[in-house]
Amino acid sequence: MTFNKSNAPASAPAPEADLPESGDRRSRRQTATRERLFRAAMKLFAERGFFETTVEDITEAADVGKGTFFNYFPTKEHVLEAFGEIQRSKIEAALVQARTTQTPFPVLFRRMGDALLEEPGRSPAFLRSVMIANLSSESVRAHLCDNLALGRHKLAELLSLAQERGEVRSDMEPAAMARSVQQSFFGAMLFWCMHGGTDLRSWYEPAFRLILSGLEARAAQPVEAGSAPASALASPESSSIPAIPSSPNSPPTKER
Amino acid sequence: MTFNKSNAPASAPAPEADLPESGDRRSRRQTATRERLFRAAMKLFAERGFFETTVEDITEAADVGKGTFFNYFPTKEHVLEAFGEIQRSKIEAALVQARTTQTPFPVLFRRMGDALLEEPGRSPAFLRSVMIANLSSESVRAHLCDNLALGRHKLAELLSLAQERGEVRSDMEPAAMARSVQQSFFGAMLFWCMHGGTDLRSWYEPAFRLILSGLEARAAQPVEAGSAPASALASPESSSIPAIPSSPNSPPTKER
Repeated sequence: MTFNKSNAPASAPAPEADLPESGDRRSRRQTATRERLFRAAMKLFAERGFFETTVEDITEAADVGKGTFFNYFPTKEHVLEAFGEIQRSKIEAALVQARTTQTPFPVLFRRMGDALLEEPGRSPAFLRSVMIANLSSESVRAHLCDNLALGRHKLAELLSLAQERGEVRSDMEPAAMARSVQQSFFGAMLFWCMHGGTDLRSWYEPAFRLILSGLEARAAQPVEAGSAPASALASPESSSIPAIPSSPNSPPTKER
Repeated sequence: MTFNKSNAPASAPAPEADLPESGDRRSRRQTATRERLFRAAMKLFAERGFFETTVEDITEAADVGKGTFFNYFPTKEHVLEAFGEIQRSKIEAALVQARTTQTPFPVLFRRMGDALLEEPGRSPAFLRSVMIANLSSESVRAHLCDNLALGRHKLAELLSLAQERGEVRSDMEPAAMARSVQQSFFGAMLFWCMHGGTDLRSWYEPAFRLILSGLEARAAQPVEAGSAPASALASPESSSIPAIPSSPNSPPTKER
């Protein structure tokens, strides 16, 4: 335990047993316990699978009493939610940076991407386990979808700000672009955790470049008679290929 | 049973029981039985899950003898492989079109994307079931990864051809772009099957537009002193953000 932020002088720490615990120290201890439970759970999910891991397994691995778990997480699912919150905080940090600095969008976007890869990039087995849990359980999936929607909302704010600054194309809705960014990220994570072995970054890098190029603000291209510029055909309205008719409830306008 | 391609005159079909079955008819019957088994299996995988479905369940649903299954599929996993082959054939068709016609790349790409959505777009439950099977079973996953590698190879050929024709950017490797295209497709499928409800096309459309814009051939942008054009920063080499150091075996050069 470090005392860097404690009120006690570093040279002469007070004997712990004799004095009532300070608020600071208690808070640090709680953060440490929560982190220990979180890490133990992540490790077990990777080794055994989410459904095969019990709360008792987690508290045993974290070396705390079984009841302690519920002081920090109401259910096992909430450990996965904590993981989602960690990821979302990376997007929020990028948004704060965008609002408070003049950092160019591509720099922010790459920094955010790198930060988002850190946690899931620890283990393909863990990612597989989380994906199986999400796909198999409706309640786990509902939590993930809620969390993704919150993250998507922040991403859309970031993209909207970059649009205002002329850094991102203005012919697409921020919400639609945000969804595509999330999807490309999950596509890379899915491929990586299926193939394993190499690092997540190398799977995401080309997709990152393509998506960032796609997001780039661009001059409107003149449509020449007889030619078919890619930018025009990228939109279904101007495509010569008939679009698949949408079902009545088709466009996901009402997102979770 | 239709006789369109049969040698027997349409006006006077021969009594079936009395004559030996023609090669044509046998072949048609076999194709129909394989298709019936395939559809029955897909439906059961969606309803019950891949692991929860037995070969007997499939033959019962398809109304054929249990042994019949093994005339068409060596194992249950091979039904999923057949699904992968259907998908791959769409990519191969696009490549043949690219080689034999002057159809612009964006048109081909959209046509291929639409075709690829057809089969997985039938049911979110089916897709979830297939993804769970892939993530849970190493052997199923190995088959999928092999099939994805074959499809990626064809995609890369298509992109390479479009590069030669000046329709696709030349500053990225076709193999890397092909992987990104596959990942974006799987990212959209993953999101759709987690959220359900709306049609797959509406989840893929914005990602499709972004990826197509990203693939577009573009004039090299002049890098102005002091400015940070997105196209330059999209490449890690020119980024001001330090790249994550690669592990020794990091770039997925040796793909399955």
